[in-house]
Amino acid sequence: MKMWDGRFSKPSDALMESFNNSISFDKALIEEDIAGSIAWASALQKIGVFSEADCSKVIDGLNSILEDYKNGRINFSRSDEDIHMAVERLLTERAGEAGERLHTGRSRNDQVITDTRLYTKKALTNIKDSLIELQKAVVERARLDLQIIIPGFTHYQQAQPVLLSHYWMSFFWLLEREKSRIHHALISTDILPLGSGALAGSGFAVDRDAIAAELGFSKVSENSMDMVSSRDFLLETLSVFASIGIHLSRYAEDLIVWSTREFGFVELDDAWSTGSSMMPQKKNPDSLELIRGKSGRLLGNYTRLATTLKGIGLTYFKDLQEDKEPLFDSEHNLQMVLKVFTHVLLTLTIREDRIKQDLDPFLLATDMADYLVRKGMSFRQAHKVIGRIVGYCVEADIELTKIPLKKLRDFSDLFGEDVMLLYSWEQAIANRTVKGGTGWESVKDQIDRAAALMQK
Amino acid sequence: MKMWDGRFSKPSDALMESFNNSISFDKALIEEDIAGSIAWASALQKIGVFSEADCSKVIDGLNSILEDYKNGRINFSRSDEDIHMAVERLLTERAGEAGERLHTGRSRNDQVITDTRLYTKKALTNIKDSLIELQKAVVERARLDLQIIIPGFTHYQQAQPVLLSHYWMSFFWLLEREKSRIHHALISTDILPLGSGALAGSGFAVDRDAIAAELGFSKVSENSMDMVSSRDFLLETLSVFASIGIHLSRYAEDLIVWSTREFGFVELDDAWSTGSSMMPQKKNPDSLELIRGKSGRLLGNYTRLATTLKGIGLTYFKDLQEDKEPLFDSEHNLQMVLKVFTHVLLTLTIREDRIKQDLDPFLLATDMADYLVRKGMSFRQAHKVIGRIVGYCVEADIELTKIPLKKLRDFSDLFGEDVMLLYSWEQAIANRTVKGGTGWESVKDQIDRAAALMQK
Amino acid sequence: MKMWDGRFSKPSDALMESFNNSISFDKALIEEDIAGSIAWASALQKIGVFSEADCSKVIDGLNSILEDYKNGRINFSRSDEDIHMAVERLLTERAGEAGERLHTGRSRNDQVITDTRLYTKKALTNIKDSLIELQKAVVERARLDLQIIIPGFTHYQQAQPVLLSHYWMSFFWLLEREKSRIHHALISTDILPLGSGALAGSGFAVDRDAIAAELGFSKVSENSMDMVSSRDFLLETLSVFASIGIHLSRYAEDLIVWSTREFGFVELDDAWSTGSSMMPQKKNPDSLELIRGKSGRLLGNYTRLATTLKGIGLTYFKDLQEDKEPLFDSEHNLQMVLKVFTHVLLTLTIREDRIKQDLDPFLLATDMADYLVRKGMSFRQAHKVIGRIVGYCVEADIELTKIPLKKLRDFSDLFGEDVMLLYSWEQAIANRTVKGGTGWESVKDQIDRAAALMQK
Amino acid sequence: MKMWDGRFSKPSDALMESFNNSISFDKALIEEDIAGSIAWASALQKIGVFSEADCSKVIDGLNSILEDYKNGRINFSRSDEDIHMAVERLLTERAGEAGERLHTGRSRNDQVITDTRLYTKKALTNIKDSLIELQKAVVERARLDLQIIIPGFTHYQQAQPVLLSHYWMSFFWLLEREKSRIHHALISTDILPLGSGALAGSGFAVDRDAIAAELGFSKVSENSMDMVSSRDFLLETLSVFASIGIHLSRYAEDLIVWSTREFGFVELDDAWSTGSSMMPQKKNPDSLELIRGKSGRLLGNYTRLATTLKGIGLTYFKDLQEDKEPLFDSEHNLQMVLKVFTHVLLTLTIREDRIKQDLDPFLLATDMADYLVRKGMSFRQAHKVIGRIVGYCVEADIELTKIPLKKLRDFSDLFGEDVMLLYSWEQAIANRTVKGGTGWESVKDQIDRAAALMQK
Repeated sequence: MKMWDGRFSKPSDALMESFNNSISFDKALIEEDIAGSIAWASALQKIGVFSEADCSKVIDGLNSILEDYKNGRINFSRSDEDIHMAVERLLTERAGEAGERLHTGRSRNDQVITDTRLYTKKALTNIKDSLIELQKAVVERARLDLQIIIPGFTHYQQAQPVLLSHYWMSFFWLLEREKSRIHHALISTDILPLGSGALAGSGFAVDRDAIAAELGFSKVSENSMDMVSSRDFLLETLSVFASIGIHLSRYAEDLIVWSTREFGFVELDDAWSTGSSMMPQKKNPDSLELIRGKSGRLLGNYTRLATTLKGIGLTYFKDLQEDKEPLFDSEHNLQMVLKVFTHVLLTLTIREDRIKQDLDPFLLATDMADYLVRKGMSFRQAHKVIGRIVGYCVEADIELTKIPLKKLRDFSDLFGEDVMLLYSWEQAIANRTVKGGTGWESVKDQIDRAAALMQK
Repeated sequence: MKMWDGRFSKPSDALMESFNNSISFDKALIEEDIAGSIAWASALQKIGVFSEADCSKVIDGLNSILEDYKNGRINFSRSDEDIHMAVERLLTERAGEAGERLHTGRSRNDQVITDTRLYTKKALTNIKDSLIELQKAVVERARLDLQIIIPGFTHYQQAQPVLLSHYWMSFFWLLEREKSRIHHALISTDILPLGSGALAGSGFAVDRDAIAAELGFSKVSENSMDMVSSRDFLLETLSVFASIGIHLSRYAEDLIVWSTREFGFVELDDAWSTGSSMMPQKKNPDSLELIRGKSGRLLGNYTRLATTLKGIGLTYFKDLQEDKEPLFDSEHNLQMVLKVFTHVLLTLTIREDRIKQDLDPFLLATDMADYLVRKGMSFRQAHKVIGRIVGYCVEADIELTKIPLKKLRDFSDLFGEDVMLLYSWEQAIANRTVKGGTGWESVKDQIDRAAALMQK
Repeated sequence: MKMWDGRFSKPSDALMESFNNSISFDKALIEEDIAGSIAWASALQKIGVFSEADCSKVIDGLNSILEDYKNGRINFSRSDEDIHMAVERLLTERAGEAGERLHTGRSRNDQVITDTRLYTKKALTNIKDSLIELQKAVVERARLDLQIIIPGFTHYQQAQPVLLSHYWMSFFWLLEREKSRIHHALISTDILPLGSGALAGSGFAVDRDAIAAELGFSKVSENSMDMVSSRDFLLETLSVFASIGIHLSRYAEDLIVWSTREFGFVELDDAWSTGSSMMPQKKNPDSLELIRGKSGRLLGNYTRLATTLKGIGLTYFKDLQEDKEPLFDSEHNLQMVLKVFTHVLLTLTIREDRIKQDLDPFLLATDMADYLVRKGMSFRQAHKVIGRIVGYCVEADIELTKIPLKKLRDFSDLFGEDVMLLYSWEQAIANRTVKGGTGWESVKDQIDRAAALMQK
Repeated sequence: MKMWDGRFSKPSDALMESFNNSISFDKALIEEDIAGSIAWASALQKIGVFSEADCSKVIDGLNSILEDYKNGRINFSRSDEDIHMAVERLLTERAGEAGERLHTGRSRNDQVITDTRLYTKKALTNIKDSLIELQKAVVERARLDLQIIIPGFTHYQQAQPVLLSHYWMSFFWLLEREKSRIHHALISTDILPLGSGALAGSGFAVDRDAIAAELGFSKVSENSMDMVSSRDFLLETLSVFASIGIHLSRYAEDLIVWSTREFGFVELDDAWSTGSSMMPQKKNPDSLELIRGKSGRLLGNYTRLATTLKGIGLTYFKDLQEDKEPLFDSEHNLQMVLKVFTHVLLTLTIREDRIKQDLDPFLLATDMADYLVRKGMSFRQAHKVIGRIVGYCVEADIELTKIPLKKLRDFSDLFGEDVMLLYSWEQAIANRTVKGGTGWESVKDQIDRAAALMQK
């Protein structure tokens, strides 16, 4: 028996019921649904719809349902269209006629969006916590690896030497901005819809501020039609999750490439790698590959909701039932992605010797151009001069730092003995004292600032 | 105990195992996995890896696993990384050492893609069958509604009268093209990968043509690296599913709008509608809304796979494990969408009286312009003349067909008594004898051709 | 002659040049590029790379290039790889050797991202301004239409009566949240990259805080690798633009449906409609259709950048050159969308009589259920009772408000004379006094609050 | 003056005109538009709308417009709403009243989709040609590189030795399937819409088969509403273009990684690389990075059209004007991508020595496991044994092929002298004689078959 079929002359088709049914996934909202119903019962009592006794009966009933659910003692039936109807049915079985009063002045339209906002707040907070854990792991790595100089890449070609810690810290600041986006999504989500009714506002003048306070919402919605229609906070949430996924995929890519035999910069811990069913020698960075691959899933979930929302009018349409699964899926997968990345980082072995051996003397070319600039040459000229020297090195198969001064002076007579001072990775790092550069002071500064942010 | 950890000094972390684990969804491949393994066992027997007895034992074991699975007697364990490893474990428990020989010359890389291609062939065939059922429903409606004239819309403004059956047949031809796309996706999918090994080809020269024959593949793959890397057939499949979803959303939209009180052209059967938890009078076309809404899901699944594939090198990476869930999800949802749409169409009530009453005399404006053209005026002039007449009607609040001939002649003296002959919906339909037009002969012709196609 | 080909033994292929070339679109950054270069020149002067005279010469040169560009006096050549190289070439032609010094300590990597951030700040601010204009139009409409009661829809079925102004205000609050997202994107964008060099930080210790102040950035970046790699602010910007587009598509859809002959609620001004090349009577809401349709474009631009970013390592790759066109395209199209929507709203005719005539007495069903609740019946019972009454109305073809009291009492003896008091649209509105509801006080309150927000 | 404003009391707003205007991009259709109009004029003559003389005048006029356009002698005006209206205006200027007759029985709805289908056929054919050129380059490389053995990768970890030519041929077969998709898209596109009118079919019974023959269409559409509504052929086209883009991105990624100093497998020709504005030593594979990056654009264009189509009813809406730009953009970019990739491949230097040196003895592990299997051990046991040997090698820092037989026999006494026969890359290749494997015969076979396909 449906809750709404008074006017229908014919029951739903079984296929229609299964098509329409959402309990297989929206049961994830049970905690929020019950919290919302308890707050609603209290609100109804204040305006006299419930006696104190009935209200208690309802609240007790709701609490007992949740407890039973948590203990695996609830079986939903196929006729439970969704979690809201299921809870109401169970409640009526337990609290009798009082249960039938609970939907007074409320619609599933404002109920479901209240549940979804409560759930989304929780999801955002959980993701934020995992993001912070990942940031802490990044800072820890940055602290550990402060003496390691790696080739910095552009186009995956060696470009300039940088501190490995500088690389790690680049990840930190990116995550810091993502955290700020999570925070904004929380603000967008933190609005109480309950009391909006189906679309026009409840017919009962409940105290919405009190409901908001009880449920932990900071704001009460301004417009009932807006509230039951809009899923903008969900779209924002999924866009932030997609952004995090996309950006993590870039760092995962680097570490996958760095894990190759050919780069050999890092080695994943056995606990975060897997082997091959056929090739006994393989050790594969599956953890990082899944992190990279799941970015597609996070983006797909965003695209999915955006397309579903596109071009549907106001207010509620059943299309909107499609809003929850992408949220659940993205939250679940992003949580794992963040946690796994945290562990991968913390257990990573850095192969310092191999890195040192890989550093290409050409990495110093920019510093040599800067040297000529300091001697008075224009940068564009200096760039050309060094370019020609590089060409010479390639042709003559000689290292940049091994060219005799005399030969260097063939290219420019500005070269002096002091050019040798450049021939040190440490010196190249030390030259980058500019704020945000890879110089030690800058990087230590970043770490300090990051640590301070983590304290807050 | 992993199948691959001989070289590992440390077990996987539990979180890593759960992150990496795919059995929760790839168990859907069990039937294909076992079929593939049976074919592989036979192939190994032919080259002497298995004795006849061992081969039988293995095949019996595999068959018993499938039977037990179907009867709910199999419990996967958390340590079963994926369906392939689970089946191998179960097999070894049942067939002993013979089971340990089954993976000879095979890798999970060629195994999983064989399973996935087998599954995709089945999914495409199922979708094709449902598409054909929908086409039949469309033709049935076209047959039934042949006398009903509706306003044809552009921009949701009444444009020209058309047969409702003409509208239905537009749907048929679209679906016919989608069917052709499904057919092409089947061709792309119908290639045997088994024997490709991890990437280099099996080290055992099995008879791949025989395996293909046994598994029902028409072709054997040409290149092992291509086979274990590429998911192009899946991307194509998901793009066809998305295309169907997007196009169904357009017909669903029309029927949702036509179901409004304001249009009132059609009424959904109670069995395919739902009511409101709050508003007792509501009858909502939820079935159509879900059909429309799920187009986002189908597109999202495509975007998800495309993004996951983007920019990963060859051959296999664990990113590719993300390829199956979108397939399963899209197939399942599209199946329901097609079936529900079929039922909605077959049970739809057309409100003929309301439609007749809604037909706007302005629908004849193009025919009136054509009339002037036939009398010798250029079309562009005729368009202007009728435009001015329409403007006069709006201003004077008079119907186009009620303007006295004398007044019409104020706009052009080409108007004669015979203009009255245009003032009939039937005449307007009859004028569209051109092939593909809305004239009765054309529409009957379409229906006949469609019926003939359905016979094939 | 390239600026970078010192080490190359062979020129680029012409096809490669055209593939690689970005000046056809990145010339849109010329203003930002020149502003950035002026600030950089000043910074270089402070550390002695430029003499005061040289610095003036460079700044004058840059200013003259911009002026010439604005006056259409600049022709870029095919060999100008991008706007940065073009400006440097032009500058060197005008300022001689001083021009060749400008690139000291700077890379195109930090230069292009500085330009892009400056441009994005401008774009976001422009969109925000247009959003505010649209909000003002919405509030104006809400003020004008305060006496108009429309059927509120769910599932495009009449649900409950609401004020048209309440509908408009739902749009306002949505836009208010989008504005907040724009504001956050501005914060994410407002960081100075200049001084990051190619990736390691500039080799010259310029005063980055001074540069930031000169260019109007609030913050200086913390990490050079992060800065030259990340396009997160752009992804966020495009996601906000897509969100606005998707949400506008929903209001556009409503107005398109409301413009049909069948609904007839609104009529677009002739200035914002178009006609048909063939059908003289047509007046089509093309403006709204384009607004709706362009949501696909805005979403596509987001997907495009997200996919391009996915899975590329750090720091700069040429893939990132693909980041600017979606920004330019989305900004341009969203600007037009917002402006056109503003005009469409302000010039819209509301067809009040038609709306009044369309209101369905069933809209009062919820109020009647609430009535029974107030008399002591449980809501779930009341919902069923009214459901049965609705069924009776449909069958007996009688209006809900025309049922004699005696008959009503057959369904429940709680009905009394006072039920008649419900039979008024005004009363139904007045019942929604709850905060955020459609009651007049609530809506006026919303308007006042909105007006106050607009003052800020 | 608009062609359609007879019924309008007010002109369009200037902003509306610019919003609505499509000539800035749809002028790309001028050739198709004029071809379509010429065919239409002939069709009208046959049914007497045109005299022979008028028809000639119109055709001459149309031809002269095209010639003038090609010679840059046509200036469109802002009031030319689109290419169709512009051509009609120009024609009327040249052919007088005859020009005003051309739109008889035709609508922009069937006209634009005829133009678009003609253009799409051309675009698909061009892409197919470029695809074939790329395939030829791939085969050429495969022929050249037949003696080069590279490590085959899974997870970017060395897995098994393969022929470089085998790798190249994997690309060939992928492209072959993409070609088949292009071919199917051509079939979907190759349907004549002209004669469909605005939606109901033309009011003039033109000979559509003759028009199709003149314009080179193989089929005539079956249903006018389907034709003016559906953009399914475009969605299919964009999905094939996206598929090609996504798959090319994977090969580009490999080559980018192989171009690193660390891999050093290949070196791009100077003509297809670029340098750095700051770092004189850099040589970057920008061509490949753009190929990879543009996959996002191709996917974005698909998503864009799909989203625009989603949920709009039938038949024509102005939303559909958004269909052409993604087509033009994807075609243009994919053309360049294909051509550049062809050149990059043909000019690539393979660094054979470096590759040889990089081959890891562990690559033979699978062959050693297979060896044990051939000696009678089960594969699963053999996998474990070799896994342990690998573990021993890592720990003892010894190469797999350097372990003394005696030590090997500690792991399994099945090892005999003949194990040494495995210790050769050539042998490992030769072992893969299975069809589709990396053995020489298989690869030569692939090349022969590919060459045969190229002949067709």
